[in-house]
Amino acid sequence: MSSYMNSRFRNLSPYTPGEQPQGRKYVKLNTNESPFPPSEGVLEAVNRSEAELLRLYSDPTSDPVKNVLAERYEVEPDQVFVTNGSDEALNYAFMAFGEDGIAFADVTYGFYGVIADFNGLRSRIIPLEEDMTLDPDKYKGIHMACVIANPNAPTGLMVPVDRIAGIAASDPSHVVIVDEAYVDFGGESAVRLIREYKNILVVHTFSKSRSLAGARVGYAIGDEALIRDLETLKYSSNPYNVNRISMAAAVAAVKDGEYYRKNCRTIMENRAWTVEELRKLGFSCRDSLTNFVFAEHPDMDGRKLYLDLKERGILVRHFDSERISNYNRITIGTREQMEFLISTIRELQG
Amino acid sequence: MSSYMNSRFRNLSPYTPGEQPQGRKYVKLNTNESPFPPSEGVLEAVNRSEAELLRLYSDPTSDPVKNVLAERYEVEPDQVFVTNGSDEALNYAFMAFGEDGIAFADVTYGFYGVIADFNGLRSRIIPLEEDMTLDPDKYKGIHMACVIANPNAPTGLMVPVDRIAGIAASDPSHVVIVDEAYVDFGGESAVRLIREYKNILVVHTFSKSRSLAGARVGYAIGDEALIRDLETLKYSSNPYNVNRISMAAAVAAVKDGEYYRKNCRTIMENRAWTVEELRKLGFSCRDSLTNFVFAEHPDMDGRKLYLDLKERGILVRHFDSERISNYNRITIGTREQMEFLISTIRELQG
Repeated sequence: MSSYMNSRFRNLSPYTPGEQPQGRKYVKLNTNESPFPPSEGVLEAVNRSEAELLRLYSDPTSDPVKNVLAERYEVEPDQVFVTNGSDEALNYAFMAFGEDGIAFADVTYGFYGVIADFNGLRSRIIPLEEDMTLDPDKYKGIHMACVIANPNAPTGLMVPVDRIAGIAASDPSHVVIVDEAYVDFGGESAVRLIREYKNILVVHTFSKSRSLAGARVGYAIGDEALIRDLETLKYSSNPYNVNRISMAAAVAAVKDGEYYRKNCRTIMENRAWTVEELRKLGFSCRDSLTNFVFAEHPDMDGRKLYLDLKERGILVRHFDSERISNYNRITIGTREQMEFLISTIRELQG
Repeated sequence: MSSYMNSRFRNLSPYTPGEQPQGRKYVKLNTNESPFPPSEGVLEAVNRSEAELLRLYSDPTSDPVKNVLAERYEVEPDQVFVTNGSDEALNYAFMAFGEDGIAFADVTYGFYGVIADFNGLRSRIIPLEEDMTLDPDKYKGIHMACVIANPNAPTGLMVPVDRIAGIAASDPSHVVIVDEAYVDFGGESAVRLIREYKNILVVHTFSKSRSLAGARVGYAIGDEALIRDLETLKYSSNPYNVNRISMAAAVAAVKDGEYYRKNCRTIMENRAWTVEELRKLGFSCRDSLTNFVFAEHPDMDGRKLYLDLKERGILVRHFDSERISNYNRITIGTREQMEFLISTIRELQG
């Protein structure tokens, strides 16, 4: 860190993104991307005449995206906040609503701890239960905001939505952020709660089920007052946060909902197959509601498995964190990719 | 503001972007966009196969963009920081280097005051001279960082680069941020100073001379230590800040340098013509080194002129700020657009 750096950032530990290899081709099962391309509507939206318009600023209101999302989720456009990836939505939400601190699980998306520190907020880590489930009652009476990845990453497990409502009801003076990055793979969304609970903010992404990780579009849905606060922060730091082409792609993706729902069903089928095969190979593997599985083997070291798979051209995600160091998080890809994974593990087991 | 909002943001005054009309077609001379489309290389880079790859995350390192910029500016790739528009670069720079406060002119890019407040930094406003020039000596002995738009917006005037060096030399313990958004229209860049002065950070954008306002790409060039600090903040708040298509477009734009240099020469010719015509009509108009002119007329109210032009289909930028309320900032477009502007003003003068 240079001598010029603001002292409040001297102890930051930045987030480590999953590997994004730009050279060698891997079977890439490490960052929960979709194995399917964007829909035909998106592919058509990214075109030469859109490129010619790049000379003009994008619409700082992101209204075209808000409008289609509002229709899709049966909310009002001013209950939607559109961002440069859902990471940006999470960062603004922490910044806006985390003044009294922010609670989250010990085993969850690692970015939460990073942005809490970045914003100078007190983090309260609430450990998951022994079986990696989350007990919503432990989020009551804490007098601070909280963020719950639902379903959770990397565990793949979900808290019932009415239990989320229970947290929000227990303390109407703090915001409950529900990060539903993976909700489209069999989970249930808390969006329908936002009318009744003014303190629930739901965060979504286009990166997973909508095959647009590279476009960087996310959004938050919540009460108008929460959204206004987030807009204030956006207009005070990066008014033109979403570019033109990603905005056009996002609009097209929402319109092509059926294509993505079909992809999600395929992922869920491939997930069921993969879990069954992993169990046959002796893995312990929870019933995931996401586009990944979280698996460990009693006789295989987690980190070694990650390295062995990488050597054979398969990338999975391993976390060097004590409680889960024997696990790997494996993105669900195409059936062919999952067959290659299973046969490779079988070979490794010799 | 909701009751949930962090109290440190209660007094924020968000930035007001220039109008981005999405309906009626205006001759748009209000946000300093280029009248020319992106280069052929950019138009080709925004294509269907790039769209198919949107399912994958963008490269969080932005290395492809860093590499071409490093070659273009004869610096090292690790002296380049790539961002989601130059507003993001400015925000990170203020955040990183503004701990002791940040000084800037009274008449300059309005976003500086906004991001200073957003980051909780003390702003020190140093008024421009009577003739709207900036006296670099007033930035010496202030014991804080400073930001100088060079050339300045909305005045269009420039501080000689060796005077910028003088500020940096006078206080090696604070960073001098040089915002060169408009440098390609006849200005001189401070980039060559970054080897000698470890505390100079130069900020550029693809939005103006490179016709990519809608792609949202900016960058900062400075000593490796400064860039590392900025990267730390990025990886702690939005690691995947630049999307795939904008990255491909940016790389292509740098490679097509000659096309953009030609466009800049055309803009400079149209600027000379416009200034001459405005003066004939009685306007007082400084010799601009940017893609806009800043003009006032002794007998025409600035705000009324803005409204009259808008009614006739021409958007220019008027600022409701006391010292410059009689001025309008007029983006230089094509020769045809400028002829339409001049004939419209002539009509207004009756």
